Amino acid sequence: MAEYVFGVDVGGTTVKMGLFDKEGNILEKWEIPTRTENHGENILPDIAAGIKEKMAQKSIAKEDVAGVGIGTPGPVEKNGIVHKAVNLGWAELNLKEELTALLDGMRVEGGNDANVAALGEMWKGGGQGYKNLVAVTLGTGVGGGIIINGEIMTGATGAGGEIGHIHVEDDETEACGCGNFGCLEEYASATGITRLANRALRSSDKDSVLRTGEVSAKAVFDAVKAGDGLAIEVAKQFGDYLGKGLGIIAGIINPEIFVIGGGVSKAGEILFDYIRPSFEKTTFHGCQNVIFALATLGNDAGIYGAARLLL
Amino acid sequence: MAEYVFGVDVGGTTVKMGLFDKEGNILEKWEIPTRTENHGENILPDIAAGIKEKMAQKSIAKEDVAGVGIGTPGPVEKNGIVHKAVNLGWAELNLKEELTALLDGMRVEGGNDANVAALGEMWKGGGQGYKNLVAVTLGTGVGGGIIINGEIMTGATGAGGEIGHIHVEDDETEACGCGNFGCLEEYASATGITRLANRALRSSDKDSVLRTGEVSAKAVFDAVKAGDGLAIEVAKQFGDYLGKGLGIIAGIINPEIFVIGGGVSKAGEILFDYIRPSFEKTTFHGCQNVIFALATLGNDAGIYGAARLLL
Repeated sequence: MAEYVFGVDVGGTTVKMGLFDKEGNILEKWEIPTRTENHGENILPDIAAGIKEKMAQKSIAKEDVAGVGIGTPGPVEKNGIVHKAVNLGWAELNLKEELTALLDGMRVEGGNDANVAALGEMWKGGGQGYKNLVAVTLGTGVGGGIIINGEIMTGATGAGGEIGHIHVEDDETEACGCGNFGCLEEYASATGITRLANRALRSSDKDSVLRTGEVSAKAVFDAVKAGDGLAIEVAKQFGDYLGKGLGIIAGIINPEIFVIGGGVSKAGEILFDYIRPSFEKTTFHGCQNVIFALATLGNDAGIYGAARLLL
Repeated sequence: MAEYVFGVDVGGTTVKMGLFDKEGNILEKWEIPTRTENHGENILPDIAAGIKEKMAQKSIAKEDVAGVGIGTPGPVEKNGIVHKAVNLGWAELNLKEELTALLDGMRVEGGNDANVAALGEMWKGGGQGYKNLVAVTLGTGVGGGIIINGEIMTGATGAGGEIGHIHVEDDETEACGCGNFGCLEEYASATGITRLANRALRSSDKDSVLRTGEVSAKAVFDAVKAGDGLAIEVAKQFGDYLGKGLGIIAGIINPEIFVIGGGVSKAGEILFDYIRPSFEKTTFHGCQNVIFALATLGNDAGIYGAARLLL
């Protein structure tokens, strides 16, 4: 019986790889560079070579491996088709078929990286014990992954769970990276919090520690913890937008738990104090009973979730 | 082999019942009153009696019936537990277990009425051929049902798909029926359109046919079709809110099709002309490719969908 499973998380600069046992214990973890040149034609062969090398090194036979799970940026359909992954250079390709072929028929399952990371947090991270989970990643952007009854909700074209682009502000004049105006990402990402802080600094003449040094999401929440009034106002704005966005998601999806990760989440549970008021004000009562938890797997969520795809 | 299936749709005043063949052809359709007195204790026995009577009348044996599907108001969990259905008088009960017992062990499947109606529209209505569908009912309120990969998304507590209570307006001062402020239902239901029209009539002194006669959703869209300027402004407001709400849903769920039903949908495809501009403006590009269609089953969607639960 197969004892091992590989989890692969393809990023724009590095590919994270992990060897797991079937209980989800991580046995080895390593990285290889993502070679995006020539439309990313080397990425899957490099991954296959890395897996074969690890198997040789550890004397693992093919029949001892349940398969390889892989998470990649961009929409990934249920059948493994990636339509476009801009930062890898990929146009349309079938992730499952191509990697299976490179691995001499080994079983491959694929998914969008944010969705796969959500699955990882459900399996071994902040969402353990739950089957209806929304993972929210507050990083440079805002990403998301939705798990329903233990399964990733991919959506019709693999673009489900794009919660960073929920429209939450009608009066925004600066465009989001996606081209729209007023997306959640414009206020709840690290970049968004910085923007809110800079706006607050410009429009107020209140004293604030944010007036000296670099303005960043981390600086804002450090200042909040130190009782800085202006930073607290910024945190309230952040929380109002994110609470409203999560409230909308709760009303539609009716999850058990939100698992909040990404760089911004390093501020800790204090985030929830700012999210909850607007969440409670805007969420349909039948869907308010949702737990807020912090993600615990950090950058390893993707390899855990990818491995989980096989089990 | 079982040839028949029953579909039951429990409303606050009448229970709609249908006898179907397994291809989904409706053979008989009838109604019984919903007896809500004494905490609705007669509702399930009345339904069971109605089914047995129909079987006797048509000489249908128990083994010829695949089972009974039933849709009821309020949240219904996957296991058939109803926590509270206020307008039926029900507190917690297990719909599947109780009705099965009353029907001598016949198989029963249950769901929330709006979700079940969505399944009906997917099976035999405006959403035929699609498996990822969001049904939107614009009636007295705004209801919804979400189908993912051909299955109802019930959510963790059976309250999934409550799209009428998506928060779409921060500055609302009148409360929604749910107690919150700024829910989609306050602008996109028949009642909501009437409210928008009355507000427009008060705040403008423009001429309008709406100044004579009853103000209603139907009157507004009749006036729109006649080129009435004020009515067109109201339709634009309605469409801005609904397009934004559906855009948010599309970004989260990534469906193939929206099926729009309920009394307001009788205005026809002209609705889409008012919904699309804000939908396109606010929806994440990867999720914009969604079809808008009208529901076609009307009040029968519930019995169709209930029957479909068995197949």
